[in-house]
Order: sequence, then C-alpha cells, then structure tokens
Amino acid sequence: MKIARFTVNDKVTTGVLDDHKVKEITGDIFGDWEYTGASFAENEIKLLAPIEPNQVIGIGANYVAKVEDIPNELPDIPVFFFKSTSSVIGPEDKIVIPDRVDQVKFESELAVVIGKEAKNVPESEVLDYVFGYTIGNDVTAPQFFHEDGHWTIGKSFDTFTPLGPVVETDLDPSSVYVKANLNGNEKQNSSTGLMIIPIRKMISYLTTVTTLKPGDVILTGSPVGAEFVGEGDVIECEIKQIGTLRNTFVASRKTANNY
Amino acid sequence: MKIARFTVNDKVTTGVLDDHKVKEITGDIFGDWEYTGASFAENEIKLLAPIEPNQVIGIGANYVAKVEDIPNELPDIPVFFFKSTSSVIGPEDKIVIPDRVDQVKFESELAVVIGKEAKNVPESEVLDYVFGYTIGNDVTAPQFFHEDGHWTIGKSFDTFTPLGPVVETDLDPSSVYVKANLNGNEKQNSSTGLMIIPIRKMISYLTTVTTLKPGDVILTGSPVGAEFVGEGDVIECEIKQIGTLRNTFVASRKTANNY
Repeated sequence: MKIARFTVNDKVTTGVLDDHKVKEITGDIFGDWEYTGASFAENEIKLLAPIEPNQVIGIGANYVAKVEDIPNELPDIPVFFFKSTSSVIGPEDKIVIPDRVDQVKFESELAVVIGKEAKNVPESEVLDYVFGYTIGNDVTAPQFFHEDGHWTIGKSFDTFTPLGPVVETDLDPSSVYVKANLNGNEKQNSSTGLMIIPIRKMISYLTTVTTLKPGDVILTGSPVGAEFVGEGDVIECEIKQIGTLRNTFVASRKTANNY
Repeated sequence: MKIARFTVNDKVTTGVLDDHKVKEITGDIFGDWEYTGASFAENEIKLLAPIEPNQVIGIGANYVAKVEDIPNELPDIPVFFFKSTSSVIGPEDKIVIPDRVDQVKFESELAVVIGKEAKNVPESEVLDYVFGYTIGNDVTAPQFFHEDGHWTIGKSFDTFTPLGPVVETDLDPSSVYVKANLNGNEKQNSSTGLMIIPIRKMISYLTTVTTLKPGDVILTGSPVGAEFVGEGDVIECEIKQIGTLRNTFVASRKTANNY
C-alpha cells in the first residue's frame, strides 16, 4: 500500500495512492485509520513529504561497489548522524543551495519509517517495527563538515532532506535497487544488498542505544556515485517499488521570498 | 515565571510553580493558555522534564576556564550535535549506564527552549524567539564517540538528557552561574560569560542553517570540570534562578525491568 501526504483544495491531508487515484484517509497512520470516502485524481493534488518525521537519523558510508567488497568485520561504532527535521521537503520542492555554500551533493537512499516504539529489538524482529519505506535524498554540503568530523551543519540546512513520493508499506527492503538520475543521466544504481551494515542490523543496533518512536525516519546510506551538483540541476531518486522523488537545485538568492 | 510539567493523580499536566504550589494551566504553552483553577502542593506532584523537546541540539566544548582565554576568533563551523529526543528524562529520574558502557560523564548546562519559529534571526533579536530556560545534563559516553569524530551514539543513549526542574521564562542568560555538585561536592561553577560562542551568536548562527521550531531545546555547552562518574553517584545540576536538577546514576542491570 502506498501512503501519500498531499494538499488538495488548500488542505493538507493523507491518503492511499492506487492506480493514479488517492483515496483520502483519516486517523493515525501508525494505528487506527479509515477511508473518508473522498477520492482525488493524481493531477488534482500536490504531493508533500509523505511523513513529518519525529527524527531523521542517517548512517554514513554504508555501501560498497561490489559484493566482494563487503567487509567481514563490521565497524565497532557505526557512523550515525541526525539531520534537522526542518530540512525535510517533498517531491518537486526546490532544494535551496545556501548563499555561502559552493557545492552540494545528492545522495539517493532507501528511507525506513518506524511505526512502533522500538527498544532492544533483535535483528530477526526489526521489520515488525517498520511502518514502511520511502526514498530520501540526503543532500549534503561537505564544506560545512567540521574538521573534527561533525557533520551536523553540513547535513542540516533547510531543504536538505527531500522525502517521497510515498511510503510503501509492502516491500522487502533486502534487495531493491536504489537509483539516482542527474539531469536524466544515471549516477547511482545499487542493490540494497551492497549495504555494509544491513537494515535489520542497523536498526537493531540503534534500538540498543535509543528508543525509536513512530515517525522516526532512518536514511540507510547511499550507493556509490553521488556527485556535486549546482543551481538548475535536476535530481531524480528512484526505487522502482516506491516511485521517483524529483527535486531541482536552486540558488538561495532566487528563493529569498520563501524566507 | 516557572513552568512545570508533572504528574498528579496519574495524570500528566502542566502548571506554573510559585511559592511551593503549582497552579495548573491548559492550552499551548507557546501560545494561548489559561489557568484551570486547580492547584497542587509541590509535595503532591512528581516533576517531569518540563518540556518534551521537538529536537535537542548541543554545542561542543563551549566554555573556557577564565575570561582571558576566550579566543578572539570564533571557529568557522561550531561543533553542533543532535541528541535523540528519546534520551530526555526528568528530575529525580535515574540515569541508566548501559551494560557495555564503562564510564559516563555529566555535563551541567543552561538549556534554551525555543518558543517561536526562527529563521535567519539576527543576534540582536534572538531572545525574542526564546520561550525560556531550563537546566540540561548532557550525559555522555565518550567511548562511543566514533574515531572519526561523530558523537551521535555516545550522546544518545536513553536517559542521557535530564532536563528540568522547570522552564524559567524570565531570565537574563548572559551572566548566570552554571553549577554541578557531584555527591555534594562542587565540580562545575562558571558564569555563562565564559562561553566561547555566546547564546545570541550561537542561536543566530543555527537559524542561518535550519529553521528552529517551538520546543527545540539548545544545550549551550558545559563549564570546565565535568568528570567521569559511575553507579550510585548523585549529580545535581544547578542554576540558582531556575532550580536544581538532581539525578542518580544506576547500572542498567538494576533497571532491567524498565525496558
């Protein structure tokens, strides 16, 4: 099932996308909800980020180029980082390159949406706590990485976390292909089987540290091939079973009125 | 005014603390609220963390030992980090040292609670966006700092962010004393005038990166003197104008039933 958040007639609402139609729902998407009976054509609505995350947690450098490169020993401490929830935007929204930033990178990623409070969850049970999956673009300005390794600022600029187009609740995350097309040219295309720390292990580990909550979004790392981009570039992050998340990069001066 | 969150008769509610009594309020503490007419004695209630943060943002190594040590040039990129919101606990709650953690540190800090959406706010206007101030204990397990500098895991264990006892809405943050007593012995006691990046500058900078939202909590750094502690240690973080935030460290095996 594909869950969408969208605006229609100036109202923000939620629905189930099926065959180019969205059937509106009401209630708690993580709990009890029901259809309202209203239904809209895909071209009547504007999709938003399908979730307003409680938190956004990312993992660094989590893909190898080929299966043989997967290390036998996993790192003692994985590189996790938070992104500001204010950085989240939806499909077709502009990614704003801030004034003082020279270059930014796209990073297409499978994003896991947690559906139930999760603490000390064994790997075998992790997927029971997952609500669904969406696509995340972990936009990054490495020049704002601190020399001592802190990524917070370089990852947290407003608009730096496009999410969407929908949350797919029925997906086997172990072998989908995570792709990115830059201005129509393929730059990333890797199976999630090339992750160094696979999803079950990653989330199980996180739950030994922190209680994950419904609405927490985990960006599971980006395939090799991410590149620097600039004003006017169009990035399409794609996972076939979920959809395509398209955004255009703009320079901040052109969107000054948004602030 | 001192805003408290508390349980009374098994209900979680909010109120204004004055002269050892709490007058219950209802509504949006960041917007319109009113007194319910109910009032409780301080010994009838259990204080909770005075705020359920939208996000918790910390700043690293932000105090010098004496005024002469404040550098003339501020760092290009301050060390900011996020802590999981699941790490927040209240006054008198136990700080749980996880199984695999050998040592943890306390860090007493002035915590700023944002009250209004804030983007690109000049230093001179920053305090208009502040709802109030509380005390934070930025508990840290440095052995879980990644060798490449990422602090996320070492800062985000559940129970690692005590907040409280109240949010004081009327405070000049520029020259209060941030203290910590460990088992009754003073370990930290510095004026906020010893911050390297002062509060207005810190928050103004953050708003050039990310839109701060009501309920965002900013931990403004800890004075020199933080130490490693262990099971049974009692830490009291104190700012006279706000109150005392007291917590005891316990080993996780003793609280296994909490999970």
